[in-house]
Amino acid sequence: MSFIEVAADSDFPIQNLPYGVFSTKSNPTKRIGVAIGDQILDLSVVKELITGTHISQHQDVFSQQTLNAFMALGRPAWTETRQVLQKLLCKDEATLRENIALREKAFVAQKDATMHMPAEIGDYTDFYSSKQHATNVGIMFRGKENALMPNWTWLPVGYHGRASSVVVSGTPVRRPWGQTKADEAKEPSFGTCKLLDFELEMAFFVGGPPTVLGEIVPINKAQDHIFGMVLMNDWSARDIQKWEYVPLGPFLAKSFSTTISPWVVTMDALKPFFIENPKQDPEALPYLKHDDPYTLNINLEVAIKPEGSSEEYTVSKTNFKNLYWTLKQQLAHHTINGCNLRPGDLMGSGTVSGEDAGSYGSMLELSWRGQNTVPVGDSTRKFLLDGDEVVLKGHCDGQSYRVGFGDCRGKVLPAAKLDF
Amino acid sequence: MSFIEVAADSDFPIQNLPYGVFSTKSNPTKRIGVAIGDQILDLSVVKELITGTHISQHQDVFSQQTLNAFMALGRPAWTETRQVLQKLLCKDEATLRENIALREKAFVAQKDATMHMPAEIGDYTDFYSSKQHATNVGIMFRGKENALMPNWTWLPVGYHGRASSVVVSGTPVRRPWGQTKADEAKEPSFGTCKLLDFELEMAFFVGGPPTVLGEIVPINKAQDHIFGMVLMNDWSARDIQKWEYVPLGPFLAKSFSTTISPWVVTMDALKPFFIENPKQDPEALPYLKHDDPYTLNINLEVAIKPEGSSEEYTVSKTNFKNLYWTLKQQLAHHTINGCNLRPGDLMGSGTVSGEDAGSYGSMLELSWRGQNTVPVGDSTRKFLLDGDEVVLKGHCDGQSYRVGFGDCRGKVLPAAKLDF
Ligand SMILES: [Ca+2]
Ligand SMILES: [Ca+2]
Ligand SMILES: [Mg+2]
Ligand SMILES: [Mg+2]
Ligand code: NI
Repeated sequence: MSFIEVAADSDFPIQNLPYGVFSTKSNPTKRIGVAIGDQILDLSVVKELITGTHISQHQDVFSQQTLNAFMALGRPAWTETRQVLQKLLCKDEATLRENIALREKAFVAQKDATMHMPAEIGDYTDFYSSKQHATNVGIMFRGKENALMPNWTWLPVGYHGRASSVVVSGTPVRRPWGQTKADEAKEPSFGTCKLLDFELEMAFFVGGPPTVLGEIVPINKAQDHIFGMVLMNDWSARDIQKWEYVPLGPFLAKSFSTTISPWVVTMDALKPFFIENPKQDPEALPYLKHDDPYTLNINLEVAIKPEGSSEEYTVSKTNFKNLYWTLKQQLAHHTINGCNLRPGDLMGSGTVSGEDAGSYGSMLELSWRGQNTVPVGDSTRKFLLDGDEVVLKGHCDGQSYRVGFGDCRGKVLPAAKLDF
Repeated sequence: MSFIEVAADSDFPIQNLPYGVFSTKSNPTKRIGVAIGDQILDLSVVKELITGTHISQHQDVFSQQTLNAFMALGRPAWTETRQVLQKLLCKDEATLRENIALREKAFVAQKDATMHMPAEIGDYTDFYSSKQHATNVGIMFRGKENALMPNWTWLPVGYHGRASSVVVSGTPVRRPWGQTKADEAKEPSFGTCKLLDFELEMAFFVGGPPTVLGEIVPINKAQDHIFGMVLMNDWSARDIQKWEYVPLGPFLAKSFSTTISPWVVTMDALKPFFIENPKQDPEALPYLKHDDPYTLNINLEVAIKPEGSSEEYTVSKTNFKNLYWTLKQQLAHHTINGCNLRPGDLMGSGTVSGEDAGSYGSMLELSWRGQNTVPVGDSTRKFLLDGDEVVLKGHCDGQSYRVGFGDCRGKVLPAAKLDF
């Protein structure tokens, strides 16, 4: 228990301690903090208290404006820091609790803070690891026969995404312009996206020292390169995607924005929520095979808050355990060709969809390509409308506590006016 | 004419003045230089002499270790700097010519310099803008019927590539491991790439201030965001690519390495070599339409230098004018959805192939998927062998001078030994 009060339904008890980057009105410098209850502990203020074999020499990482340097240190330093912070924040520990002057400087209310991107993202990769999602999309885009491509069960399919347009929760998202072509049309036309969608995903940040080009991370070491996780909304323009994606994959249909939640929940905090991996059939090739449980039991949901409404209406509930490929498999696959990783690289899971219709991770699936309507309060949706705010949430249920991710939100703004 | 001697066949006369980042044994700090003949003018040494309305306040960009800050300044500063450097280096100008002590410090022989990545690449995009290449690959991967996808003539197809593994000329390239599946096989297998290939491309660096997310660069302003060009070898593992690329595009088949030439030739230097754009049919949509000539007449060639050989054998000769989509169209398309650009972003042209078999830009096409052999000195190739060094070259022919790109080389190393 912490001496900082933590509500029973808080995402941020002492068992969590996620890292983020924040600033305040009175101090606009970006700095690193840890969420505890509805407060933030400012690590730039308490860094001298963070000591231990692995971290004492590296306290400067807590004066950076991003988490990249801390991410680069590797697991021994991460675990040590977590232990120190849990002790510092514990109600039985006087160091911080009794130092009123320091507490005054070290804590900031989350409501007074502006959150920023937690890291500078060198490269952003998006996987496609939910079998149910890949099957659903495959049926809609290519028909039932070719739904799941033959490679899907053999390797974690993924592609490179745009790093520059990954933004932090709260950043509005402009409806994109682009080319689309209706099935019946002879020629494409230019206009604003008509089929704007979200994708409910999670993503992990790569940690550890940069790997060298040509270096392969074996699967039994993959966990050493996984720092922590966030929620991710991979906004998607379905009509643009459909026309552009053959043969080189999604491009402008995705690169207009990708939103992540600001608090990075570490793998140490998620440890209690690892469960058995799904059985893979066919059996994974040796370079992708691991037995240690690395599938995560994380409750996920998506809500839409229409323009002018004060309510958020849940449109999907699912669980991260629906992922077929584990994060370890994704990372090992990513480096099997020698591709180098840098701390701060972001790897998306792919849209997480469950078995039943209420657990799909996109409007494309929920409305089954616009064939059905999805209730949103008094109204309905097939795809997103201007003014809709999309809210992703996620949490793990512990015994009398929860480890949560906060939320990942973004409001749809009308398309830009073209002045040419 | 420069007071620095420039050989008649040099790529780097005073009309060129490309920018690069170099270091020397005696001074291992990376610094910015300009190539002139077989010399480098060290801009960190002469930066106080680079003056003018636009650049005087920004001389610090020449003490950086990458070109990003200079690239960010925009065309007025680029053009001014070029004029100042042409004057400084001119044989009629005494300032530098007569200052023996300064000359001693300011010039480094290219043979004594190590070249580095010219910029930190935020995002790397690869287009697919040669119609002949797209048609050739389409025939081989999908058959004659579906060779050119219907979207190809309507938009410059492109995809996101991996930024971390873009390396500078001279960096060896390891043959990758990966999954492949033979047509007749029931299951994929794991092994080293058997069909290793190059792709002859050029790429441009984005310049100008970063654009804001949501901002669209209209095509009549696209040139303000194009700083300069390099040669690029988009190494490709054809067998890995074939198995992995459906439906989200190439991933590990490309991300093991992409090599660029170290000298960035500016668009100002390339101005004399712009020619009429190819006629586009269908006519480009308005947001992609421009009449100013932006097609470049650049002679390109690829040579292979086998292990142990002292000769480089030319395997392809083509011209950059074969590109169907212009760089302006690529850039305007890239931002039409509001995707933001950062100075230092790299955009590849796609493999440049001409009409006839001797002008194809990859072994895949030259050997027509291994059906034919390609003579390389006394031996032949279908794809690349370990020990092969691939050399790309490019130059524009001026009147009694040439504006060249130097070369872009990389030697194939055997696959890594797996120790797991
Ligand atoms: Ca996605
Ligand atoms: Ca390419
Ligand atoms: Mg996205
Ligand atoms: Mg490449
Ligand atoms: Ni010539």
